[in-house]
Amino acid sequence: MSKVYTAASMSLDGFISGPGETGFEHLFAWYGNGDTAVQTANPEMTFHPSAVSAEHVRSLFEDTGALVVGRKLFDQTGGWGGTHPMDRPVVVVTHNVPEGWPREDAPFTFVTDGIESAVERAKAIAGDRAVGVNGGTIARQCLDAGLLDEIWIELVPVLLGGGTPFFEQLGNAPVVLEGPVSVVEGTGVTHLRYRVR
Amino acid sequence: MSKVYTAASMSLDGFISGPGETGFEHLFAWYGNGDTAVQTANPEMTFHPSAVSAEHVRSLFEDTGALVVGRKLFDQTGGWGGTHPMDRPVVVVTHNVPEGWPREDAPFTFVTDGIESAVERAKAIAGDRAVGVNGGTIARQCLDAGLLDEIWIELVPVLLGGGTPFFEQLGNAPVVLEGPVSVVEGTGVTHLRYRVR
Repeated sequence: MSKVYTAASMSLDGFISGPGETGFEHLFAWYGNGDTAVQTANPEMTFHPSAVSAEHVRSLFEDTGALVVGRKLFDQTGGWGGTHPMDRPVVVVTHNVPEGWPREDAPFTFVTDGIESAVERAKAIAGDRAVGVNGGTIARQCLDAGLLDEIWIELVPVLLGGGTPFFEQLGNAPVVLEGPVSVVEGTGVTHLRYRVR
Repeated sequence: MSKVYTAASMSLDGFISGPGETGFEHLFAWYGNGDTAVQTANPEMTFHPSAVSAEHVRSLFEDTGALVVGRKLFDQTGGWGGTHPMDRPVVVVTHNVPEGWPREDAPFTFVTDGIESAVERAKAIAGDRAVGVNGGTIARQCLDAGLLDEIWIELVPVLLGGGTPFFEQLGNAPVVLEGPVSVVEGTGVTHLRYRVR
């Protein structure tokens, strides 16, 4: 059975972006503060984290079989030009299928009947590999619906003072997690993995 | 020179108490989820954390020479009956000295001219040991005023969904920290220590 996880770079005060979509230079600094190259499917996007974080990122890429994202991110990135940087099939949760999609040359699926259906679809695609769901609204919906198995936090040593929380408006707070089941010390980031009970 | 730190048990979503002063059974669970006794100055309050966390707490107690707390906490605890559980002198930041205080039998000092003065007083008391300042408003005031050297986060695997943030209304966000300079894996808690630049 495919495991469902969410992962995001988060500030010490719990934000995945700062006020007014700022702070990314801090949140994502660890992707570029080392000298170990990690290729993505986007030839213009190569990460250079520390060796420890590179291993972490590569292993996450390898273990992932499909992704679930919201329509907002899909629009913001222009559907990543048809190829997600992780080079994996993407299931987009949306109310309406965007014009020009789906495309034969891009492994993007559009699900209009809710998060459960989207995760089910992604699991079928992922086979025995994991399904990665986007932080923010999508992750929170999965958590509320009991669809989430693991939370991966890339904890970054910055206080952003506001912005978008990793998890907000939780339906079932408090949510007690198990772990961390792993702690990996990168440079400028601590990779923490928790299990949802 | 005395180092100034703040330390608190914090949820993964950044809160040191949940909505309406709830969630402490989760935030402080690690103080009682093991079998290593840690005595406090209060005979009725003995902690039983894991061996790893016990060592962490004992070392923090030993390294601390004085504490700075706000008037709210002082009132809530009734001045800890005159003895703080850490058995250290306490400097209380307040607008007015409470009735009946100071007392000859209790090492409590009341400072009415602001946080800088309170920290200076605590440093003089602490000598070459550290000054611990309370999470919440006091810690934030210290951070804003450039008085804080370290932030110790006891990161607890729970999402509280709201409440009192460890740091809120920061005057100088984003604040980039250094570290973690140490990561100690307890049971049900990850002890993280960061340096303020």
